[in-house]
Amino acid sequence: MPQNARHIVLVRRPKGALRSDDFAVRTGVLGDPAAGEVLVRNLWLSLDPYMRLTMSEQGGLHGTVPLETALPGSSVGEVIASASDDLPVGSMVVSRTYGWRDHYLAPAHELLPLPAAPGPIQRYLGLYGLTGITAWGGLFGVLKPQPGETLFVNAAAGAVGMVVVQLAKRAGARVIASAGSDAKCAWTTEVLGADHAINYRSEDLAARLAELAPEGLAMAFDNVGGEQLEILIDAMAPRGRIALCGAIALYDGANYRAGPGNLFATVEKHVSITGFNAGFYFADAPRIIAELAAAEAEGALVDEETIVEGLEAMPQGFIDMMAGASRGKMLVRV
Amino acid sequence: MPQNARHIVLVRRPKGALRSDDFAVRTGVLGDPAAGEVLVRNLWLSLDPYMRLTMSEQGGLHGTVPLETALPGSSVGEVIASASDDLPVGSMVVSRTYGWRDHYLAPAHELLPLPAAPGPIQRYLGLYGLTGITAWGGLFGVLKPQPGETLFVNAAAGAVGMVVVQLAKRAGARVIASAGSDAKCAWTTEVLGADHAINYRSEDLAARLAELAPEGLAMAFDNVGGEQLEILIDAMAPRGRIALCGAIALYDGANYRAGPGNLFATVEKHVSITGFNAGFYFADAPRIIAELAAAEAEGALVDEETIVEGLEAMPQGFIDMMAGASRGKMLVRV
Repeated sequence: MPQNARHIVLVRRPKGALRSDDFAVRTGVLGDPAAGEVLVRNLWLSLDPYMRLTMSEQGGLHGTVPLETALPGSSVGEVIASASDDLPVGSMVVSRTYGWRDHYLAPAHELLPLPAAPGPIQRYLGLYGLTGITAWGGLFGVLKPQPGETLFVNAAAGAVGMVVVQLAKRAGARVIASAGSDAKCAWTTEVLGADHAINYRSEDLAARLAELAPEGLAMAFDNVGGEQLEILIDAMAPRGRIALCGAIALYDGANYRAGPGNLFATVEKHVSITGFNAGFYFADAPRIIAELAAAEAEGALVDEETIVEGLEAMPQGFIDMMAGASRGKMLVRV
Repeated sequence: MPQNARHIVLVRRPKGALRSDDFAVRTGVLGDPAAGEVLVRNLWLSLDPYMRLTMSEQGGLHGTVPLETALPGSSVGEVIASASDDLPVGSMVVSRTYGWRDHYLAPAHELLPLPAAPGPIQRYLGLYGLTGITAWGGLFGVLKPQPGETLFVNAAAGAVGMVVVQLAKRAGARVIASAGSDAKCAWTTEVLGADHAINYRSEDLAARLAELAPEGLAMAFDNVGGEQLEILIDAMAPRGRIALCGAIALYDGANYRAGPGNLFATVEKHVSITGFNAGFYFADAPRIIAELAAAEAEGALVDEETIVEGLEAMPQGFIDMMAGASRGKMLVRV
């Protein structure tokens, strides 16, 4: 039987910072699933900074989403009608593309059935999903921290940064976090366990790094890019290594792909910059999730969420997250 | 007894491409060595692209050389007067700073005595010196080629590139070289053993790379920087790795430290960019030189030189090298 459904679209190509009226909720009606398909009611939608890139004309890994087309993203939902033996009604599933909407039809093989594990299901969008795998990949796939080494991570109160701080501490690193408010900074040290935190808005990041790591940083996990990446390159120790995860400072600008003005400092100091994304670590997801679950079971992993209520509130939630208003993983409860 | 001596200075800070009248030869008189010092007559002077950086106001690893001051560089010479038991008259020595001059006084402990090895002594400026150590460091310290992997190297007919091509082939890699003339390209394939060569001046580098490495480059050894680095980043395979050695294309410009306009492609493809310089591998020099000597003894290593005759010709030789006129290692015979 027909299902009323809503999804969020862009109504214009954003110029500079996003505005809530760049977005609109559109309604439609979904039919019954065809053979091999399922109809899913989304329960949770993920908000991730990379989504800004799909809204940009610059395209890139995820392409450019056309106007008036449902935006892509991850979601957790429940199968409410099924024409697939693999996913009977009542199955809980993760999708990597059918976010930003309340219902969708999809081939069953595109979806990941959720294991019947304890704990909140939305964690498969966060700690056990894109966020956790991103943090793990950058830390253990790229940086490979050794005990006693100093690691810097920015956007440390964000979804990925929060996990990086905790996993790095667990690996024996000394962690310098940065965030955009004193409250977030206090949270990264008092709750997440960072050794030091820098409020990049009220403090001089370069000067504080020089103070806290006078011999330079062994590692940096960069979620911010732009001017912060330049400061990090200058702050690296000889043979330092940088994991490039995102460049949120550049996503509203004319070229988020742009490199730093001081790349040649890497030649002088034998510094490496390695870009990466979670896609390169999805194959390791079962092992990564097992590691994260073990850390959680020991009480060594805080999983913080900022929850937005309702699909209509999603665009403003995204805008708020990009402006730094959230803490931990940002999710929409549909 | 006093020794007449000549050295080369900058008479003005170069703007853009170097001109021969940016330089001048100055004369002076050196006295007898003080206790612990030696007087050296240089026989060979090294010409290396990094020297352009010391002439720039931008400074960096090697600093900015003041006008009317002897330019720094490497040299091989003979001790002609000594007040040091460590370096008697007749000793052959390498210096890393007393280039661009015909005689100098220096503390003996600043100099490296040359071993009594067969072969031309000037190789301690090239294959057994900065050049060879740079090539080895970038290849085996950074890129770590595996048999069958594809490596691209630009400025492949230059001093460092020439060694990279040969060592990479010896390590079992498939090598795509690029150079600035058809004659140089032919030399890199026919003499050095590169699998393919691209004349970047007459061919479309990006298109040729797409043709020769449709699945992308596993490795790139970048001596050129600028636009070529951007093309390389786009040409890398997933998990590709780039060794950043130099950025000769940018050395005449306003900011040779500038990064590429497409750095974010490294995030999309899990590509690493590692800057390095020979200084990080000097401690391994004995082992590196032994490896290079073994390769040479097997006839597997061509050591090409372009020789400029006389100190007066050195500035023009440097200008010619930066414009791509030389092949192999460029040296001045004093």
